[in-house]
Amino acid sequence: MSVFNYTKPKYIISSAAVCGSFEHRGPLGSHFDGFSADDKFDCETWEKSEAEMQRLALRLAVDKVGVQPRDIRAIFAGDLINQCTGSAFGALDSGVPFFGLYGACSTIAEGLILASALLESGLVDLTAAVTSSHYCSAERQFRTPLEYGAQRTPTAQRTVTASGAYLISSDRFIDNSQFLPKITAAMPGIITDAGICDAANMGAAMAPAALRTLCDFFRETGHTPDDYELIATGDLGFEGHSILCDLAKRSGFPMPNAVDCGLLIYDRSAQDVHAGGSGCGCSASVLSAYLLDEVAKSPKKAMLFVATGALMSPLTVMQGLSIPGIAHLVEIRFG
Amino acid sequence: MSVFNYTKPKYIISSAAVCGSFEHRGPLGSHFDGFSADDKFDCETWEKSEAEMQRLALRLAVDKVGVQPRDIRAIFAGDLINQCTGSAFGALDSGVPFFGLYGACSTIAEGLILASALLESGLVDLTAAVTSSHYCSAERQFRTPLEYGAQRTPTAQRTVTASGAYLISSDRFIDNSQFLPKITAAMPGIITDAGICDAANMGAAMAPAALRTLCDFFRETGHTPDDYELIATGDLGFEGHSILCDLAKRSGFPMPNAVDCGLLIYDRSAQDVHAGGSGCGCSASVLSAYLLDEVAKSPKKAMLFVATGALMSPLTVMQGLSIPGIAHLVEIRFG
Repeated sequence: MSVFNYTKPKYIISSAAVCGSFEHRGPLGSHFDGFSADDKFDCETWEKSEAEMQRLALRLAVDKVGVQPRDIRAIFAGDLINQCTGSAFGALDSGVPFFGLYGACSTIAEGLILASALLESGLVDLTAAVTSSHYCSAERQFRTPLEYGAQRTPTAQRTVTASGAYLISSDRFIDNSQFLPKITAAMPGIITDAGICDAANMGAAMAPAALRTLCDFFRETGHTPDDYELIATGDLGFEGHSILCDLAKRSGFPMPNAVDCGLLIYDRSAQDVHAGGSGCGCSASVLSAYLLDEVAKSPKKAMLFVATGALMSPLTVMQGLSIPGIAHLVEIRFG
Repeated sequence: MSVFNYTKPKYIISSAAVCGSFEHRGPLGSHFDGFSADDKFDCETWEKSEAEMQRLALRLAVDKVGVQPRDIRAIFAGDLINQCTGSAFGALDSGVPFFGLYGACSTIAEGLILASALLESGLVDLTAAVTSSHYCSAERQFRTPLEYGAQRTPTAQRTVTASGAYLISSDRFIDNSQFLPKITAAMPGIITDAGICDAANMGAAMAPAALRTLCDFFRETGHTPDDYELIATGDLGFEGHSILCDLAKRSGFPMPNAVDCGLLIYDRSAQDVHAGGSGCGCSASVLSAYLLDEVAKSPKKAMLFVATGALMSPLTVMQGLSIPGIAHLVEIRFG
């Protein structure tokens, strides 16, 4: 059994999401808590901008509930930049114990799982999870400098410029909302290698990992996809989402209620994003900015959040290795 | 209070360490569980060699106690390679839920803390922590290709080729040893920036973080350095170790029993390593190969393990940013 069944729910007492200008022009733009018109967030390098996004998202989440940053007992943070410096510099001034994570685009779910597991231990009472990605820092690191103007293939995804931050507590902490989201269960992912070697098709590399985690979860818990208002993956994009839906149907778990954060954040008909969005900041921001509110007012008031990651690097791809995928699952309920 | 006081000790039921040829010729060489004479571990790239080290160290730790790999409920793993691919590919065939970490050279302590905190939660009963570093994968990524033959400054440290793996359980699991080491407390580190910008002097960048964690721990718990047989940092090297000892004395916590994994692993008089060793695999392997045995047979049967990390990247250094340090503390007792 690999499902984490919390004895008491862990409350997401606050969350916040900030994004770049391109994401702000997308269908969810008005839902974000803040954005930068030039994607720079008043910084002189893209890497500093990304760190600033993390700092800002966490500060906004903290301000919403009026806790003191020093009351947070642990920050779980990660990003895509080499050596995860977006997270280290983002948390530099926080004064909070820091756990750096690397789970590629699955990192926010990894953070939510560890933040709530640490609460379950009773060792601490308030934790945070924050992740980010920035189109401009990611492009020049993973692919080519922006100025190069490289063409992308139809299955490629665009790295989202955004950050999402969450405060999680064993107590309600504040009781001003009957709709406080609760993390009620979780399932950490197992690395799954489907043999995909095309770094411009990470959706295909990650979809089998999402399938594995979801099927394992349904089998172990006895739940079905229909028990949830929606099953939100992030970030499979158009290609990976299609593959997952196909594979899930064949596995006996059809998921007509599956949505993907990489498809929600952009309007593919109006924005030139090929297969959709990706990056640690995509699912992290879409969950906070959009999904939690949607599920709170839905009939079933329950969702599965399955963030997926492609655990490759430019070097492993150049060395001809296939792309291992991972998918961490978080069950969120309201009421 | 940021100390994690476990209600029940977490047992390190097994551990293993493997290393490269240069480390095997060092003073601790005979203590390792395995080594590769050509540092390749039968792989064709240095990055694959590093992943293989992680796989091998974990397998050796598992074999020592005869558990099944599938009994492990979570692996916490990290390394220095961009996007932590040493860990992802090392755990690829394990079939175990995977949490990727990035804490630079502090990663093994981060892993031990999270692995034992997850056990404290009661959600799982057996976890693993594993980290690695490889001189050849690190040099070409962080500095220059080996073939370039760059000169190094006196304060520079050599990335250790090694991996250490630990199995941790809430139960003794096996009872064939009265000297099973126990993790009895822990303290996650807070990011500390002392303003050091020289990437060839990471010891100086990390020493203030080690000081902060240690002083916070002594103040919060009321313990003193004298309560422990030794206080093992990793990996400050000669420069950082000297700075830490000076600063600790001035802070009212003189630590004549402080040792540093980066100084223990090499013979600086005979091996050309400048300020000593560093890397995620240094403290991870020295703890398993040497320190646990030493403390087990010591009078006090207690130690503090304080792994330190420099949370920079080549890019942040080039961009002129200072090097944030972090130090995670683990209290280990025997008997």
